[in-house]
Amino acid sequence: MREVAVIGIGQTRVEEQWEKSLRELAGDAALAALHNSGLDRVHAVYVGNMMSGSANLQQHLGAYIADWIGMRYAEGLRIEAACSSGAATFRSAVMAVASGQVDSALAVGVEKMTDSPSAEITAELATAADADWEAAQGLSFVALNALIMRRYMYEYGWKKEDFAAFSINAHANAVHNSFARFHEPITLEGYQKAGMVADPINLLDASAIGDGAAAAILVPLEYVQANRGIPLVKVAASAAATDSIAIDQRHDPLWLKAAEISGKKAYAQAGLSPQEIDLFELHDAFSIMAALSLEANGFAERGQGPRLANDGEITPAGRIPIATRGGLKARGHPVGATGMYQIVEVVQQLRGEATGTQVENARIGMAQNIGGSGSNIITHILQAI
Amino acid sequence: MREVAVIGIGQTRVEEQWEKSLRELAGDAALAALHNSGLDRVHAVYVGNMMSGSANLQQHLGAYIADWIGMRYAEGLRIEAACSSGAATFRSAVMAVASGQVDSALAVGVEKMTDSPSAEITAELATAADADWEAAQGLSFVALNALIMRRYMYEYGWKKEDFAAFSINAHANAVHNSFARFHEPITLEGYQKAGMVADPINLLDASAIGDGAAAAILVPLEYVQANRGIPLVKVAASAAATDSIAIDQRHDPLWLKAAEISGKKAYAQAGLSPQEIDLFELHDAFSIMAALSLEANGFAERGQGPRLANDGEITPAGRIPIATRGGLKARGHPVGATGMYQIVEVVQQLRGEATGTQVENARIGMAQNIGGSGSNIITHILQAI
Repeated sequence: MREVAVIGIGQTRVEEQWEKSLRELAGDAALAALHNSGLDRVHAVYVGNMMSGSANLQQHLGAYIADWIGMRYAEGLRIEAACSSGAATFRSAVMAVASGQVDSALAVGVEKMTDSPSAEITAELATAADADWEAAQGLSFVALNALIMRRYMYEYGWKKEDFAAFSINAHANAVHNSFARFHEPITLEGYQKAGMVADPINLLDASAIGDGAAAAILVPLEYVQANRGIPLVKVAASAAATDSIAIDQRHDPLWLKAAEISGKKAYAQAGLSPQEIDLFELHDAFSIMAALSLEANGFAERGQGPRLANDGEITPAGRIPIATRGGLKARGHPVGATGMYQIVEVVQQLRGEATGTQVENARIGMAQNIGGSGSNIITHILQAI
Repeated sequence: MREVAVIGIGQTRVEEQWEKSLRELAGDAALAALHNSGLDRVHAVYVGNMMSGSANLQQHLGAYIADWIGMRYAEGLRIEAACSSGAATFRSAVMAVASGQVDSALAVGVEKMTDSPSAEITAELATAADADWEAAQGLSFVALNALIMRRYMYEYGWKKEDFAAFSINAHANAVHNSFARFHEPITLEGYQKAGMVADPINLLDASAIGDGAAAAILVPLEYVQANRGIPLVKVAASAAATDSIAIDQRHDPLWLKAAEISGKKAYAQAGLSPQEIDLFELHDAFSIMAALSLEANGFAERGQGPRLANDGEITPAGRIPIATRGGLKARGHPVGATGMYQIVEVVQQLRGEATGTQVENARIGMAQNIGGSGSNIITHILQAI
């Protein structure tokens, strides 16, 4: 297996992009990543996207985006794993390059949600849940997460405001990220006053959707010769695991088993323990998911995720910085692109380019992207060398 | 790069499967492939599918199918490349195993089209065309292919009935394939009387959609020890290329450039020439596509595809047998599954299991799956060893 390096990154700001089409969004991030890499061509174009078939009436995004960015005749395909489509795409690109079949790959995640002709984003998101056993019962994604959060509060005795620290950290970090959707810090008071979406999840527990694209260029590590004045980033680990889609089918709805499995696999591949991770871009689609992710990956004891946040250990200066560029909460969550934003942000940290929220001496960063309510979890560890 | 073997295959009959859900269909093919392989577990589940998000209100098929077949916690994702989703899935599984990241993979293509709640299959298929430049103008897939066929007849002087031999061969072969949608041979007279769909494409030029699933199990070749009494099949080549999605953007709408590129790459990887291919499962979604595929892959001169068919060279006893189990035309074309049916059928031939249409001494078989009207073309060469 060839080792793989990430030599270019690009992203668009997460917002309502009324004036850009799906291909323009993906193209902007892809061409930025290409420019950043110094390459002018790639052999393969992997596109992560969840809902373009219904929201944009366009599938077949591999060929579609490849041609748009001037890579006609390159190979191309689209990868979908609900909200983990971005990381699934990065993993596919990693394996393609590692296999020797592909010598350079673009992985780009894109989602254009806010001008869906159907405007039925909530229903479209529900296609990531179990159509027969969840969606057909009227359960939206925020409702599913509300059930988990309510049970978690009951089991471990946390109060609602104990989760505020996750959102406050995310918004504080996003202030410094020009690509983030929100640039306003929030307070505990603001959190307490935020409107309820699905009790106990309020507006400031939930990530915002948006339009956006993020991209990376991958090549075999052995091909990277000159030091271009920035730290070189290699993929130290890539791992994935699934769980049941329907939450009622799980042995324990308060434990992200797929995160534990893919996290342990990733630690083993990289030869690292959680203590050696300098920052962790986790999947804070809802604040409860941030807590569960910290626990399943070995950063907090079971039921103790909120303690880390309240002790200030998740800030850029803390023991395990999370959502360092705003996370899903404040950078925004354009679903099929999110996993690629996480990769881009970890690379920024490892290169020392995370203006305003740079984690000191960051050398090892982890990104973990979740599809569904914990049913597909993909973990990457990147390392500066 | 590790070499990859196909050790199990499974499929369902292509038909209107009113009594089976999407997951049951995929599960039936997947479990048949597992049983055929002798394994009871795989590490990764790759699902090829185009339209489940709209037709079945279910995305996230990697986790969904993995759990259904008892592979909870395996990794899983879905791959989409329009009608080439099946081969894209097989190629992703090949690269995953070759990379060393995955030690056993299930590749399953599935499509459940006939009970789409929207019943707007034609519109859903059009999401594989360019939404802005083709679909929005009202061009369906059959209309796009009709434009190509009309131009081809004009340029090279073929008459409509010159294409009948493709359909007659496909239907004659499908008679012997219990998994095919149709089991009735057709005649030139029947072809001439068939109702017109989009002039010059009639009902017997066009493949039928349907519900179906086909699957294969892949492992590193080095892991395969005992000879289980059937020839072992290895992946000798895997290659892919794109072209513009919109046909008007192509340099030559009568030449499948992406087939030429991926075909040449595949021949080079396998160290073979077209003369050494014993059978060719090509993408005869429309008879014009069969002609263009034979030309772009070096089996016929430019503009001379129909001659091979009319000379009887495409039958199981001919120089280059195609559609040996019925092809898209008569086995049926459940879009996201088709590429996996092609793989299954090539393996059947190489194992000597192609009852009724066995190609004598078949040792090397090629499968080529096309997405869009030639915009994504993926080629595999399998070899019995």
